[in-house]
Amino acid sequence: MSTRHDHVRLARIALHWLVEPGNETVHRMVNANGPIRALERLVEGDALDGELRGAVAARMQTGNPHEIAEAAIARAERLGARIVVPEDGEWPQPVRDLTRLLGRTADSRVDRDLAPPLCLWVRGAPPLDEALDRSVAVVGARAATSYGEHVATTLAYQLAEREWTIVSGGAYGIDAAAHRGALSAGGLTVAVLACGVDRPYPAGNTALFDRIAESGLLISEWPPGSDPLRHRFLIRNRVIAAATRGTVVVEASARSGASQTLRRARALGRRPMVVPGPVTSAMSVGCHEMLRDHPEVRLVTGIDHVLEEIGPIGELAPRPRGVERPHDVLDAESALVLESVPRRGAAGLDELAARAGIDVRTTMRKLTLLESLGFLTRREGGYALATKARATSKTATKTAKGAKAARSSGAAP
Amino acid sequence: MSTRHDHVRLARIALHWLVEPGNETVHRMVNANGPIRALERLVEGDALDGELRGAVAARMQTGNPHEIAEAAIARAERLGARIVVPEDGEWPQPVRDLTRLLGRTADSRVDRDLAPPLCLWVRGAPPLDEALDRSVAVVGARAATSYGEHVATTLAYQLAEREWTIVSGGAYGIDAAAHRGALSAGGLTVAVLACGVDRPYPAGNTALFDRIAESGLLISEWPPGSDPLRHRFLIRNRVIAAATRGTVVVEASARSGASQTLRRARALGRRPMVVPGPVTSAMSVGCHEMLRDHPEVRLVTGIDHVLEEIGPIGELAPRPRGVERPHDVLDAESALVLESVPRRGAAGLDELAARAGIDVRTTMRKLTLLESLGFLTRREGGYALATKARATSKTATKTAKGAKAARSSGAAP
Repeated sequence: MSTRHDHVRLARIALHWLVEPGNETVHRMVNANGPIRALERLVEGDALDGELRGAVAARMQTGNPHEIAEAAIARAERLGARIVVPEDGEWPQPVRDLTRLLGRTADSRVDRDLAPPLCLWVRGAPPLDEALDRSVAVVGARAATSYGEHVATTLAYQLAEREWTIVSGGAYGIDAAAHRGALSAGGLTVAVLACGVDRPYPAGNTALFDRIAESGLLISEWPPGSDPLRHRFLIRNRVIAAATRGTVVVEASARSGASQTLRRARALGRRPMVVPGPVTSAMSVGCHEMLRDHPEVRLVTGIDHVLEEIGPIGELAPRPRGVERPHDVLDAESALVLESVPRRGAAGLDELAARAGIDVRTTMRKLTLLESLGFLTRREGGYALATKARATSKTATKTAKGAKAARSSGAAP
Repeated sequence: MSTRHDHVRLARIALHWLVEPGNETVHRMVNANGPIRALERLVEGDALDGELRGAVAARMQTGNPHEIAEAAIARAERLGARIVVPEDGEWPQPVRDLTRLLGRTADSRVDRDLAPPLCLWVRGAPPLDEALDRSVAVVGARAATSYGEHVATTLAYQLAEREWTIVSGGAYGIDAAAHRGALSAGGLTVAVLACGVDRPYPAGNTALFDRIAESGLLISEWPPGSDPLRHRFLIRNRVIAAATRGTVVVEASARSGASQTLRRARALGRRPMVVPGPVTSAMSVGCHEMLRDHPEVRLVTGIDHVLEEIGPIGELAPRPRGVERPHDVLDAESALVLESVPRRGAAGLDELAARAGIDVRTTMRKLTLLESLGFLTRREGGYALATKARATSKTATKTAKGAKAARSSGAAP
């Protein structure tokens, strides 16, 4: 029994086969006439620009769109995958925002392929919309360094622990590290592929893809059996950017697909985030360029910074705190007085006041305070630095040791 | 023979002994009455705030300001140092800009000690003003990592090669690495000290200080014999910031003196620059925080970025270029056609057009182009990827190999 819904579904699948996903002209036709009529018009060669007409004609020579769509559905069913279309309840609404990117002048074909997907192939149990609702993209270089993989794994693990879904592209390097981090935390992760969900690429990540499909999702705009053609990775990137609240680039060389994902995220109003790295590493060159070129791109060093961008309002990262030093509890004058006490031996009030450049009465007051805190002891009619042996209480010992350490390590801030 | 100039000089020296350098009240008195009268008024306890009066009284107990100033000059002469005052031709004019920082509400004593120095002790031959004319500060953590030291050394070396003077604080870690880098290039370097130039601190850098003094300069606001008291490092930092065109922080922990130098540089309109590092390194935490907190702080990864900030206008850093790939010379459609050629065997025109999703005529044109560039060869009535064995010219070989490598490495961008 064939319903109208089934026809729409078939038409959408056929359209993604007939013309590569993201095509703006096809998007406008679907918007104007609906998927079924848009497909008919394309097949008939009606009212199209010459380039698109030629592309459709070329592909039509290799098969019938309806038959191919039926075959794709059958193939997907065999491997436990499903097709999700915008008419379905689990369609991820945020990808609709891609329409914001349309109508711009495009320098390259890839910049013209920015329309929302017409359908998504999905392998894995969780509903697509729920899985992507609280999600963040963690992407980066394939030729990642161990530093980058460590950062990606840790970040994804911690975000997954806080019930954020980690979205990435399933590639070697940073992508795989991010997926693994999320899996280690028992969290949800979604791999957005540039090929069929039945034969995820690269093959070296097959075990990883199987693990992802067990608890998370493999998704793709291309029907099962599709090859990971070069240009598809760039088209795919817009989905990663649109489906998430923000994109974190962990490592990227000077020219990288990750920087393109980040550009899309920025254009869509998603949070663009970049992890810096050693300036000596080629794998951080792209990251540093993004940070230099775009003031709105946020430098992030860990989960707190990421949550500050994507998390609920008010979830601000704590300020990093340096090592607490006993000196830090002192006001400026007390610190000056303490500095004036000789490293060895003792000194009298007048001498200390002179060295500190503070009047005698204030110096006296500060000395008393410092003595009560355990920084100083009275000796030989003057004041000396407290030592471990002389300190009586545990606190005083610790404080006095700290004060000595601060001095003997040079006292420079 | 004692001239008025000598009296002014003596008064300035005495003032820096009587009250720690940078004091705003003293600065205003010198501005209003001249150094000689300002000194008299301070010694007399005239018209001062109580705190300053107390500080002066305390120090007066340990000696006579004029005698101490005379002794300091004699001591400096013995070790080949000189005193430079604003009345001298070689006074570095940019430090006058420190007056811009005055009159602000100050949270701490250090923030009140922002007035320009009244005199500078100098060890080394080059005229102070010339040495500092084209200068940049390279500063950072004492407990630097080998990464930080490598970056500081390299940067200082390259800047010195371009005849930039490297200014730093003579401390262990980044400071020492910066001085050493400049020395290795045979360039000028200036250490701004927080103690007397006769006994530079830390003692472990004594050999380095001697080398600096041979070709560059050791300078200090404190008379010979002065101790490197803790608060002096912070006071000293304003001179590093003011005397240079910009400050580069290479490594800094969460609470560091380097971040204070950078704050001063920003407030003075000097260029604030920060080198990022691994987010896993405690020595880069301060750097990343500065970059996050202050949009005007520039992330720099090497000399090109630094020159873009401090160099003549128009000296822009070149864009980093990724590895050139044969694909990069192709337009989008040609790339699509190339992608459509099977990895093994050949394919005909119609099949390739269908796979690429491009009309047959355009596909034909692109195939001819790709063949002429050596990407493809005709075979079995179709087109196949060119291989090393089949390529005839050296260029074609290289290109074809590149194309294959790009494909077999996954073709993902």
